[in-house]
Amino acid sequence: EHHEEWKNGGRLMSLLLGINIILLGCALVSGGAFHEVAVVEREVLSYLTVLMGLTGCWMVIYLVWTARHKNSVMLKDSHAGPVWLRAGAVLFGVCTLVLVVLKIGKSVTLIHCESPLKIVHPVIQGVFVVIQTYFLWVASQDCAQIHLNRTRFGLMLTLSTNLTVWIAAVTDESLHQSVHEEDPHSGPKAAVGDCGCETEICSSFETGYYYLYPFNIEYSLFASAMSYVMWKNVGRIMSHNSHDTHHAFKAQNHIVGLVFGIAVLVSGLAVFIVYEIEVNSEETRSQALTMFYIFNIVALGLMSVSPLAASITYRLSKRDMDSHKNPTRTLDVALLIGAALGQFFIAYYSIVAVIAVSPGHLHDTLNLIYSILMIVQHLLQNVFIIEGLHRKPLHEEHEEHHHNYPHDHDKDFNEVYINPIATVSGEVSTHEHLNELDVKPPHGSVTHSTVQHVRADHKTRLVKEISLFLLLSNIIFWIMPAFGARPQFENGLELKFYGYPMWIAIVNIGLPFGIFYRMHAVASLVEVYIIS
Amino acid sequence: EHHEEWKNGGRLMSLLLGINIILLGCALVSGGAFHEVAVVEREVLSYLTVLMGLTGCWMVIYLVWTARHKNSVMLKDSHAGPVWLRAGAVLFGVCTLVLVVLKIGKSVTLIHCESPLKIVHPVIQGVFVVIQTYFLWVASQDCAQIHLNRTRFGLMLTLSTNLTVWIAAVTDESLHQSVHEEDPHSGPKAAVGDCGCETEICSSFETGYYYLYPFNIEYSLFASAMSYVMWKNVGRIMSHNSHDTHHAFKAQNHIVGLVFGIAVLVSGLAVFIVYEIEVNSEETRSQALTMFYIFNIVALGLMSVSPLAASITYRLSKRDMDSHKNPTRTLDVALLIGAALGQFFIAYYSIVAVIAVSPGHLHDTLNLIYSILMIVQHLLQNVFIIEGLHRKPLHEEHEEHHHNYPHDHDKDFNEVYINPIATVSGEVSTHEHLNELDVKPPHGSVTHSTVQHVRADHKTRLVKEISLFLLLSNIIFWIMPAFGARPQFENGLELKFYGYPMWIAIVNIGLPFGIFYRMHAVASLVEVYIIS
Repeated sequence: EHHEEWKNGGRLMSLLLGINIILLGCALVSGGAFHEVAVVEREVLSYLTVLMGLTGCWMVIYLVWTARHKNSVMLKDSHAGPVWLRAGAVLFGVCTLVLVVLKIGKSVTLIHCESPLKIVHPVIQGVFVVIQTYFLWVASQDCAQIHLNRTRFGLMLTLSTNLTVWIAAVTDESLHQSVHEEDPHSGPKAAVGDCGCETEICSSFETGYYYLYPFNIEYSLFASAMSYVMWKNVGRIMSHNSHDTHHAFKAQNHIVGLVFGIAVLVSGLAVFIVYEIEVNSEETRSQALTMFYIFNIVALGLMSVSPLAASITYRLSKRDMDSHKNPTRTLDVALLIGAALGQFFIAYYSIVAVIAVSPGHLHDTLNLIYSILMIVQHLLQNVFIIEGLHRKPLHEEHEEHHHNYPHDHDKDFNEVYINPIATVSGEVSTHEHLNELDVKPPHGSVTHSTVQHVRADHKTRLVKEISLFLLLSNIIFWIMPAFGARPQFENGLELKFYGYPMWIAIVNIGLPFGIFYRMHAVASLVEVYIIS
Repeated sequence: EHHEEWKNGGRLMSLLLGINIILLGCALVSGGAFHEVAVVEREVLSYLTVLMGLTGCWMVIYLVWTARHKNSVMLKDSHAGPVWLRAGAVLFGVCTLVLVVLKIGKSVTLIHCESPLKIVHPVIQGVFVVIQTYFLWVASQDCAQIHLNRTRFGLMLTLSTNLTVWIAAVTDESLHQSVHEEDPHSGPKAAVGDCGCETEICSSFETGYYYLYPFNIEYSLFASAMSYVMWKNVGRIMSHNSHDTHHAFKAQNHIVGLVFGIAVLVSGLAVFIVYEIEVNSEETRSQALTMFYIFNIVALGLMSVSPLAASITYRLSKRDMDSHKNPTRTLDVALLIGAALGQFFIAYYSIVAVIAVSPGHLHDTLNLIYSILMIVQHLLQNVFIIEGLHRKPLHEEHEEHHHNYPHDHDKDFNEVYINPIATVSGEVSTHEHLNELDVKPPHGSVTHSTVQHVRADHKTRLVKEISLFLLLSNIIFWIMPAFGARPQFENGLELKFYGYPMWIAIVNIGLPFGIFYRMHAVASLVEVYIIS
């Protein structure tokens, strides 16, 4: 019981620490951003550098602790830090490293007029990213059992450092873009102020690293999510009865979903490439936008209808829900709902802008339909995934249903059960034999059972097809924003309506969440596919 | 089990509905605020009117349902909707009604040039506030057991309506103030645009209702908090073993805390009144600010030291922690931490501004100290309150300690136990009598026990004194911002640093939370006082 007290104490204290780090960062960054003279830029950079340095040191210490206590109990939460999250962290981490190198390069060419902090900061950031990526890869499943409170503080420090870096990156990027968009002919020099790039190589460094900003933003989000899960898991003792059913992920039986999904994926890739080429020249931009919106509307339409169909199927085949507490699932659901807010945000702002201006251009109307469908699709898909995650796996349920009958072969029941018709008929006939032998209903009853089972099988199959289709189409909806499609800027309407810094900030805050949502949805759909 | 499924389904769906209502409202309001032509003002008003109308209808329907099913089980959560919250809702509700009347008055005088929506909207708002205040007063403790899902949707509608109204009010107020502050000589006419006030009476209506805005903002926050608790409570079945120990709140035994608390309260009131009078004239403003800051720094210093002392006392007298799940307490803790964010936000932004500008004026330095102390005070007080709420009441603990002994008079044990020394000595002697009669340690043991008990009593007394002191001083820190002290605007530094709309938005968002925090802290401190 005393242990509990300290658990809450440590949680509370570390939470308060985290809140204060983030708020101070937030105030510093917005002070730097909104004040005409960048008088606090130095402070922002020092703050970030100190935070990253501290976090880096802590992570090294943690790794040393873990290595030293390898023999002690080191529980793992197998649901935390799934492969897609860790791989994503590595991918975005590498991109961030490239960004850091470009930043250092630029600062070195400007060494004559800029403060040395501009070199120290990216160097520390590089070291930090390397350590953190390794740390997340190795330790993201740990449920720390030693140094509980110190680990809580360390993880909260990691979380708040990443969020502060995220806030700083979003603000930086928004300011840069708004300067760039407002006056596209002035080039990158206007963004820097008195100490601007004058050489060719410096400018190319600068252009390069602004392209990589989205990956840096995404990296911070990933690291935050993973360190939050680790923080929640500190001191948790896993119950080992959560059977790790490693179903093979076999898609070959579900041709329809596979074919439709691949069709959307491939056509989406084609549309995306054409769009990226055409949107940059003035004369083809309108055409590119129209094509892009039409593809999106068709695909989103399909992706809205299919989870709706699956949800209706759920209603028809009532299966028991798994209402046990499951922290990982709760977190999954919260992340799905929370990350969807990003796209909701953008979509609602677009809708308001289009309705208020009501310009009547073709691609503004398309933009309206696209935004509405985006919201509808997220809603329906979330309902489908969340309900899917809460359903009991099929085999478990059958186990429960038949538990009432006493079976001698209880242990190998599952293996026998693989052929459903055999089992059902066997059971029914045993019953019937006991009561009456000569009357002939048994055959009819067996057929009825079998038909029901086959019908349930059809439903399961439908759900599996749909999840496969959604899974594949979510991939293309991840690829398009992640690799630079920004119709929100290119159509120009919202930029004009809300003004530069505001709309850019909305998109820069919302879109990374949208990208995170798509990746998370793909992972959850795999799970739904397996459970169904 | 099937019931569980629907519970989650209804929760999820209503949550998604609420999110969408709020986001659409947010987009509409910021569309109206940031666009140069107020083209969407009509849409914002219609949206708010429709929302309030729907919510009002729903609340009437709910009241009819409840009245009709009076005989069916209607469980109450006695911890939800405490008196301070309900009374606050009524108080702020009345102020909002006055505001509504002033708004209607202004719109009627401007009927020749404004749309009738400007009259319909406040009328509906008035009706809505009346119904909602009654609804919250009557139903805030209900744990609805009939029409579960419909109630969830209705409460979520209430919650999101209130939050949307809150967003709209905050934005309105910030825009109004920023127009007013930037150009104080132009008067209120500039805020309205082409259809401004021209008569005396219209202007006084307008000036009046802008004074009442803070109450409206606070009212929406209160209503949101209460409807959120009701939403969480839908379908909850209360366990009745949570003994409602109605301790009398007797303060007369704790003179020191009482005296110090009243001293802070009274001197705070005096300072506040002088400040409000002096701050409005140019020549005495600086002096008023200095006085105000010095009082705040002294008071906050005392209010930081005392919870720190109490926390140390906690460490010294280890008492068992109550680690049972308690949803009301969890919510209380979350609200304390969450509402403190408002002041943190303001304080960090002030700190950054002062440090970045480093003006060296006396009242800027005082502002810096004040902001830092504000953060420290919130942190220490939160830690103290939260730890206090988690400690087991003294009598319960003793009960548990002694449960090992078989007692015949188990039922009336509590009554006997009122005199602790009598019981302890009685018990020890019984024991001793059983083992050895002639040896004399019993007396020593009794004395030792008594000394320990007296020492524990001293500690309890100290904690009680401190909670009483904090309770009284939190009241003055509630009164000052609630009734219009705004040193954040009057010192002028942050306004210059962050620019008008931004700093006003920060204060208008943060301060209502800060006011809410103080009220909530007072209520929680009463509880801590009773438990200790």
